[in-house]
Amino acid sequence: MINPNYRLLVISTSTIHGSGYLEYIREEILDFLQTDELLFIPFARPSGISHDDYTQSVKDALNPFGIKVSGVHSYDDPKEAVNNAKAIFIGGGNTFLLLKTLYELGLVEVLREVVANGTPYMGSSAGSNMTGLTIGTTNDMPIVYPPSFDALQFLPFNINPHYLDPDPNSTHKGETRETRINEFHKFNEQTVIGLREGSWLRVENSTIELKGNLTARIFKPNQEPVEVESGILSEEIYI
Amino acid sequence: MINPNYRLLVISTSTIHGSGYLEYIREEILDFLQTDELLFIPFARPSGISHDDYTQSVKDALNPFGIKVSGVHSYDDPKEAVNNAKAIFIGGGNTFLLLKTLYELGLVEVLREVVANGTPYMGSSAGSNMTGLTIGTTNDMPIVYPPSFDALQFLPFNINPHYLDPDPNSTHKGETRETRINEFHKFNEQTVIGLREGSWLRVENSTIELKGNLTARIFKPNQEPVEVESGILSEEIYI
Repeated sequence: MINPNYRLLVISTSTIHGSGYLEYIREEILDFLQTDELLFIPFARPSGISHDDYTQSVKDALNPFGIKVSGVHSYDDPKEAVNNAKAIFIGGGNTFLLLKTLYELGLVEVLREVVANGTPYMGSSAGSNMTGLTIGTTNDMPIVYPPSFDALQFLPFNINPHYLDPDPNSTHKGETRETRINEFHKFNEQTVIGLREGSWLRVENSTIELKGNLTARIFKPNQEPVEVESGILSEEIYI
Repeated sequence: MINPNYRLLVISTSTIHGSGYLEYIREEILDFLQTDELLFIPFARPSGISHDDYTQSVKDALNPFGIKVSGVHSYDDPKEAVNNAKAIFIGGGNTFLLLKTLYELGLVEVLREVVANGTPYMGSSAGSNMTGLTIGTTNDMPIVYPPSFDALQFLPFNINPHYLDPDPNSTHKGETRETRINEFHKFNEQTVIGLREGSWLRVENSTIELKGNLTARIFKPNQEPVEVESGILSEEIYI
């Protein structure tokens, strides 16, 4: 059973086509946070953007709605900052860089502790990969070597964010996303939830709800993948 | 300078659209090998195919042209098999699985030794990633955790196989290949050669020749990427 203290928002992508940063999901975020203070963890650094610049983009998106945002990198003691946070958001970017930095700063254990004690956790893209068992289903390039692929492990499965259906017209011989996840399942047992852009999971009271207008694709070893509609996910879907 | 003993064929993809396995590049392979015995290393296991089945596909492609193929997994002592090989081919699949297996079997050092002593080495896709400094520019999912990202390091740069140009019509918010390689260069110094499907590098006599009909895309830190035509690559292109 999912820890009843967990409050998670697991977002496939921060931005959808034709819409600003976090814009399409803003109402859900405001409803979820239930606080006006957010600690942002910018370590995934999309396109190598600086921690300050990345944090500023979150401030720009959420300050107008009464949310005060601070970057964890701006604290002398990031562990203490996480311990004291009212709510936490880990943004997208490179999953390997993010996880390596969390391990280097000793933040993996403290994040597990505070979220298990009820601090709301929001992740998008790489930040959503963190909520699963491992980063083994990230789409990112392994630009740095983390000490482990084990993620924060709030959820008993893996996330594949930005899930992308095969292009029937493609002549490219690189693997499709589905082929990659099937390869993952030759060597790993856990369910993988492919979250399309515009979808997210909201986790509260030991239930997982798929939100957004799209279905999600559920992969398990030695089974055909299935599509699930938005709504509460029964345990047999993700175990 | 490239070790003058190195004889390498570094292939972006084993198969191009509308053509059989290794078919489009068969003449180049036959010209390159200069032997009728090939040791195949099937550890990248595309789609989780078995070692035997993967080796059989190489036999089917090359036996009709007089090349005897054996799979390294069929030997009691894979190190000895590599030591005795007349020529070596590492096929594509999952780069993480391939590299992890090479380390586990102690084959990284022995491959470096025999190739430095002149054994011809052919790689496609994941097998081409092996020829570079690290696997940090693979396109694959990290389905298993290797003990290092350091590759066989025959060449003083990294390969990005199956290089794919951005789709100008895409609305998907996942990173383009170029964005990913730019992120790599925020944390790594080496040149990255993006090899499009249908391109390969032939390395002999300390020279690197880009072959096939397409240009390759060359990425360096803090520089705009450039396109190079087929032909001998000058050292300033890849250093």
